[in-house]
Amino acid sequence: MTEPLLSTRARSLAAVGQASSWAIADEGLRRVAAGEDILLLTLGDPVCPPHPAIVAATKAGLDAGRTHYTPLHGEPALRAAIARSEGCAADEVMVMPGAQHAGLAVLTLIVGEGDEVILSDPFYATYPGVVAATGASAVRVAARADLSTDVDAIEAAITPRTRCLFLNSPANPSGTALSVQDYQRLSRLCEQHNLWLVVDEVYAHFRFDGQDVRAWQHGPAGRTVSLNSLSKSHAMTGYRVGWAVAPGRLIAALGDWSAAALFGVSQFIQDAAVTALSLPESELAPYRQAFRARAQQVVARANALQGLTATMPAGGMFVMLDCRGVEPDDQRFARRLLDEAKVGVVPGSGFGEGGRGHVRISLTPEAETLDLAFDRIAAFIARD
Amino acid sequence: MTEPLLSTRARSLAAVGQASSWAIADEGLRRVAAGEDILLLTLGDPVCPPHPAIVAATKAGLDAGRTHYTPLHGEPALRAAIARSEGCAADEVMVMPGAQHAGLAVLTLIVGEGDEVILSDPFYATYPGVVAATGASAVRVAARADLSTDVDAIEAAITPRTRCLFLNSPANPSGTALSVQDYQRLSRLCEQHNLWLVVDEVYAHFRFDGQDVRAWQHGPAGRTVSLNSLSKSHAMTGYRVGWAVAPGRLIAALGDWSAAALFGVSQFIQDAAVTALSLPESELAPYRQAFRARAQQVVARANALQGLTATMPAGGMFVMLDCRGVEPDDQRFARRLLDEAKVGVVPGSGFGEGGRGHVRISLTPEAETLDLAFDRIAAFIARD
Repeated sequence: MTEPLLSTRARSLAAVGQASSWAIADEGLRRVAAGEDILLLTLGDPVCPPHPAIVAATKAGLDAGRTHYTPLHGEPALRAAIARSEGCAADEVMVMPGAQHAGLAVLTLIVGEGDEVILSDPFYATYPGVVAATGASAVRVAARADLSTDVDAIEAAITPRTRCLFLNSPANPSGTALSVQDYQRLSRLCEQHNLWLVVDEVYAHFRFDGQDVRAWQHGPAGRTVSLNSLSKSHAMTGYRVGWAVAPGRLIAALGDWSAAALFGVSQFIQDAAVTALSLPESELAPYRQAFRARAQQVVARANALQGLTATMPAGGMFVMLDCRGVEPDDQRFARRLLDEAKVGVVPGSGFGEGGRGHVRISLTPEAETLDLAFDRIAAFIARD
Repeated sequence: MTEPLLSTRARSLAAVGQASSWAIADEGLRRVAAGEDILLLTLGDPVCPPHPAIVAATKAGLDAGRTHYTPLHGEPALRAAIARSEGCAADEVMVMPGAQHAGLAVLTLIVGEGDEVILSDPFYATYPGVVAATGASAVRVAARADLSTDVDAIEAAITPRTRCLFLNSPANPSGTALSVQDYQRLSRLCEQHNLWLVVDEVYAHFRFDGQDVRAWQHGPAGRTVSLNSLSKSHAMTGYRVGWAVAPGRLIAALGDWSAAALFGVSQFIQDAAVTALSLPESELAPYRQAFRARAQQVVARANALQGLTATMPAGGMFVMLDCRGVEPDDQRFARRLLDEAKVGVVPGSGFGEGGRGHVRISLTPEAETLDLAFDRIAAFIARD
């Protein structure tokens, strides 16, 4: 029997082979589930529950019968709350089931076959899949030696086919962030070459350097899109709620997208999101400050070990360990850490060429877990 | 300033102009919100809350800390529950944030630029947008005079570019359903021409004729996809949870899709879905039987009026009123009902050429509301 065809899009997505980026993380999860004593420093999923007020708001929404369809762009109260948080107008907000979907929808509406999207390499592992899903080509531009976005290299990579720069600040996995100067140069490039600037800012609330430089305020007017969500900032990964902030023309297109692709986002989840965004910063500060402390801890522990180096990230939920002094092959290093040290980390090459020679350490585990994991890594290096 | 471009896909979606299908429904909602006494028979959103056990399961999930990422294909317990309900294997199930998204994802993975997707006209109003979002072309095949899918006409419309038949059974708005004989012929066509058969079955639990003919059991093996959700069957529109049942190759591609487009579905919502699917049929029967009673009521009331006719639907949540005996222009008839009778209905032409001369009546309002609305329609016709 002839099998019915899959689309070009499906083949492009499969060719991206994202699953292999997470192979060691997935194996770690399976082995932990099977009872093995492995410490997982793999996933960006906060271990703590959301703030009790958020859970209470979810239940209140359920009790109030908030189980019906919503406006396609999101509930007015949530769009207003996001607008306050982002410094934009409410009608520049599109509520989405997560920043991942916001990125896919936005890119689908601005690029397609024959277009090029520039990524800074290393990039978050799902980005090549997002670009593949739109039919466009991803152009991977090497980051600087410190893994930060290299605007000179981006400029050199622009072709007549380039339509979009798709960046991440603070970045996963690199922990680097775009500066005001970067945005000034990126804005000029976008205006000169008629490009969109799409910035994934899901780690914007985790800045370790006292800066808060956002795309909507510093990117090029009329061509900037900011993607964000509550997954990281409010430990709400399992709520699947995020948004795009974008110019009106794109917001209108996102409404068309929702009518075809979503039919809105859960009503009681939007209620919970309103409550999350109205929490005073004092309620969230301890949660967020813990990430800074754990970043300092991981950097100190790593630099104390022969052959490993790490730099304090500007922000985010991750530290990249340069492992080339121990083992230049990051896949092999991650494999050996899993099998011999019983510590799960993500090989940096899963995030592009720029991640090679590094492994990514998640800051979501508790400090005690991180310390125990580094004790194991230290013992592994000592006996190696 | 040159404005940055939107994609071909965005322009295709905008050109579909789905918003105009709902213009009168939206205006009705706005006027009701502004305090006007209008009875809305427009939306397929059940007015009742979900079963209390479903709400309790949602809260239990929240209390159990089920607020984290899930496997990309869905929680194993939910895939198993869906498999029991659909008569498929658990690894043939992909959990999705609603059937709308399931349809978009499936079509994106099987068709693209240059491909043709056949719709039976009238069709559910979002389908042209779904097809436009994939880059393929929608080929609208006129239904029979009774608005049921015309398999002869579908066969005549197949070209070398046809890749997929995208049908709805029981159908919105027509209330018609595919028979075993239809499936036999559709299966032969799909095998002969190497096509996919995608059937939206979100109204499968609302059959008024005692039949239960499902795509997965009667469609062509290896090339059938069934889309479903809990929105209608369990009054869970605001939960945004649905699924696709599909052959393994497509399930794998849907995993790639989720990695790029979704990152899974909310954990506590999946818990609620497991509970919904485990409710004994006796708990849901009164809710579902009410739709049959209301269909009978609407058909009887319509046929008692000069110039209106209606047929008892095979299933679904809607009755189509043929209004040509009063006013051949369904847009004008719906407009006049809204303004002069204070009753909101959806013009049939928003569902394709096949819907012209009809207006769609939703069976979601309570019987008393439907009676009052038909009193108003009767008075309008009497004085017209």
